[in-house]
Amino acid sequence: MAKEIVLTGITTSGTPHLGNYVGAIRPAIEASRQEDTDAYFFMADYHALIKCQDPARVQQSRQEIAATWLACGLDTDKATFYRQSDIPEIAELNWLLTCVTSKGLMNRAHAYKASVDANIADNQDPDFGITMGLFCYPVLMAADILAFNANKVPVGRDQIQHIEMARDIAGRFNHLFGQHFVLPEAVVGEEGSILKGLDGRKMSKSYNNTIPLFDTEKKLQKGINKIKTNLLEPGEAKDPNDSTVFDIYKAFATPEQTEEMRNKFAEGIAWGQAKKELFELINGQLAEPREKYLELMANPAQVEAILQAGAEKARARVRGLISDLRNAVGLVNFK
Amino acid sequence: MAKEIVLTGITTSGTPHLGNYVGAIRPAIEASRQEDTDAYFFMADYHALIKCQDPARVQQSRQEIAATWLACGLDTDKATFYRQSDIPEIAELNWLLTCVTSKGLMNRAHAYKASVDANIADNQDPDFGITMGLFCYPVLMAADILAFNANKVPVGRDQIQHIEMARDIAGRFNHLFGQHFVLPEAVVGEEGSILKGLDGRKMSKSYNNTIPLFDTEKKLQKGINKIKTNLLEPGEAKDPNDSTVFDIYKAFATPEQTEEMRNKFAEGIAWGQAKKELFELINGQLAEPREKYLELMANPAQVEAILQAGAEKARARVRGLISDLRNAVGLVNFK
Repeated sequence: MAKEIVLTGITTSGTPHLGNYVGAIRPAIEASRQEDTDAYFFMADYHALIKCQDPARVQQSRQEIAATWLACGLDTDKATFYRQSDIPEIAELNWLLTCVTSKGLMNRAHAYKASVDANIADNQDPDFGITMGLFCYPVLMAADILAFNANKVPVGRDQIQHIEMARDIAGRFNHLFGQHFVLPEAVVGEEGSILKGLDGRKMSKSYNNTIPLFDTEKKLQKGINKIKTNLLEPGEAKDPNDSTVFDIYKAFATPEQTEEMRNKFAEGIAWGQAKKELFELINGQLAEPREKYLELMANPAQVEAILQAGAEKARARVRGLISDLRNAVGLVNFK
Repeated sequence: MAKEIVLTGITTSGTPHLGNYVGAIRPAIEASRQEDTDAYFFMADYHALIKCQDPARVQQSRQEIAATWLACGLDTDKATFYRQSDIPEIAELNWLLTCVTSKGLMNRAHAYKASVDANIADNQDPDFGITMGLFCYPVLMAADILAFNANKVPVGRDQIQHIEMARDIAGRFNHLFGQHFVLPEAVVGEEGSILKGLDGRKMSKSYNNTIPLFDTEKKLQKGINKIKTNLLEPGEAKDPNDSTVFDIYKAFATPEQTEEMRNKFAEGIAWGQAKKELFELINGQLAEPREKYLELMANPAQVEAILQAGAEKARARVRGLISDLRNAVGLVNFK
């Protein structure tokens, strides 16, 4: 039986934080180890350009994200790991798909509609400040997925619509030019995989409530110390079901460790002590990958070589399909 | 002084006719011979996909157009002649430009607006049947032009707006990421370069009033015999200023030949005779390139080799710019 192709895109506009690790990196790397899976991971750096016009930040983020995934144990012999912008076939496919995508479909995209609604609420022109990048984004995302005929695409709930659009675009192309694409399926992570941030909301760059994954040990400790707690004194029983500290602890602990901490909460562990144990737990798990991360950040050429090999592997996979597609639409060499 | 870069795109969705020859092919090839000009000619086959979902027709048109330009004397040692779809850098640039193009600009494009107006008149959804290809077309056209930093772009009147959009997009990119693009200028052909068709309107595929450029001698004759004339008998004076036959004759004749024919009109030349002389004039000029055309159509591999060399020449010119642009937006290799 053919392996199932699972494709994961990582937007390169920020620095990986604990929430990314728990919610995306750790489970994705685990899943990629399964024998029946052919995993593709790519840095969505073309997508990053839609929102980020700061070249240094895009560049820094690409490097940090590459080093992070490698440091966290991504096996690039088994998985295919590449930068989107290293695969020219994706930009080509983007245009082929653009030609078969109905504009009405893009009009209905959530991200675009949200921007329009905000403009209207501000008494602005509905398309004020909206770029074609934002508007065309779902087509490029379809190209990312369909280039490898991915079966499964792990996404957040907000991205389900884009996978449905990729299915729609694939179906339209198949209808016009013959059966070339499989219809991808969205795989939505469990709620449990969302980590809380410093303020108790979902840990997210946009809430400015993150703890960086691979900063120094000291900064990790400082970050953890900033987690919001209540005013209960040492000795007073604390509710683990309403504690960000407990929540994050649980995301890194074994079931046994979690149970122990639950008891300590009941016994009235001091917040300072709970945070100290949280730091030790996380730091214990991150110390080794952190060292690897710092080493990779200091050796960009090493990361580059891995990504070049990944791009070559990815391109070898996409070339046959692109050639078939060019054939199908009438762009064949003369012979 | 640097040579002026002049870039001409040729849409590959039809068979070249006499109007294309007089209005575009002949003057473009003449202009490309000027010493101060660096001429680029490309087959816009990615654009053809917007309107044409018949692969055989796209493919056939690409081959006919390539053979036509070569048969008409395009000097591919001097000019750069290539297929758009052979230059992956154009698809890449298309995305970089997409990210800086405001959606509002595309909303105002004539071709898009005309489709919307037609839908509204039909009580349809404004975007009914409109593809993203049609909507995004001016961005791809900007990529075609800016990839080579063309100074001049010869276009029909209906395309002036697209060149203005390319300037706008180039300016926006320059503003955000530094001075990379020169602003292209539209060059609009003279009215005299528009040939009339069988029915007296502009010769155009959309009016179904064309005479093919390189069909058989017999078909050329048949086509010319179908040109609409009035009911004036032989011996009756005819008005050269209101005659399609005279108009087409003039497009191929020397000033002396034109004067002679003008006299014959005044003397009441029979329509049949005038058409016979028109055929002889045109056929005399087309016989040699027709032979060359048929030879090239019978040797697709020869045309392919010329286009491959053209693509390599074009890519060599675009690579440096694309590398600078990737640098500018933050897509640089790690080192």
